[in-house]
Amino acid sequence: MSDPAPKLWIKIRLAGGEIGPGKITLLKRVAEHHSIAAAARSMGMSYRRAWLLLDEINKICGESLVETFSGGHARGGARLTPLGEKVVVLFDRASDQAEAGAAEAMAALRQLLSSKGG
Amino acid sequence: MSDPAPKLWIKIRLAGGEIGPGKITLLKRVAEHHSIAAAARSMGMSYRRAWLLLDEINKICGESLVETFSGGHARGGARLTPLGEKVVVLFDRASDQAEAGAAEAMAALRQLLSSKGG
Repeated sequence: MSDPAPKLWIKIRLAGGEIGPGKITLLKRVAEHHSIAAAARSMGMSYRRAWLLLDEINKICGESLVETFSGGHARGGARLTPLGEKVVVLFDRASDQAEAGAAEAMAALRQLLSSKGG
Repeated sequence: MSDPAPKLWIKIRLAGGEIGPGKITLLKRVAEHHSIAAAARSMGMSYRRAWLLLDEINKICGESLVETFSGGHARGGARLTPLGEKVVVLFDRASDQAEAGAAEAMAALRQLLSSKGG
């Protein structure tokens, strides 16, 4: 079937800009890979683009969500700050809560469009 | 205060593309102004851009959400189809429901970032 159900996703607008699934995924990949370069690669993104996005996220939140560290098995790398970890958790929670809350309207929209090829 | 509360907004992904607040606002403006040109102007958008967006929305939904008509007081114009009116209503409802559903996580995010200048 080429007719997947309508899918809801959220963005959160803060004073300094917006945070959406793309930026949150980048943060998760940094946490996973301990490296901005590897996180960028895993998303098919240039290092420069990833760095600029992370700089933007830090500015939006008023404090760093990613920090670099030196030493360890891989001569250092990058990781989320405690604030970064909390923002990722709260974004995911907001996303889940929004999807659950909007279930009724989304079901109605799915029914409305299901016969139209949307 | 330069620290407005975090604001959640939604997009809905369908098989053929995404519908978000921008496209929905354009539909509302067409309904209000009975004119694609006037709707575009009211959003600071070129006629061409508005036309392309409406064409995209129609394709996404598999059926026209806007139709032109001739005659009447202004030598014709544009209006929403019944499907267009329903999509606008359901998008707004999904948006309201999502915001209500995510209230807890958004409050936690607000509290987390309130001291950071976010």
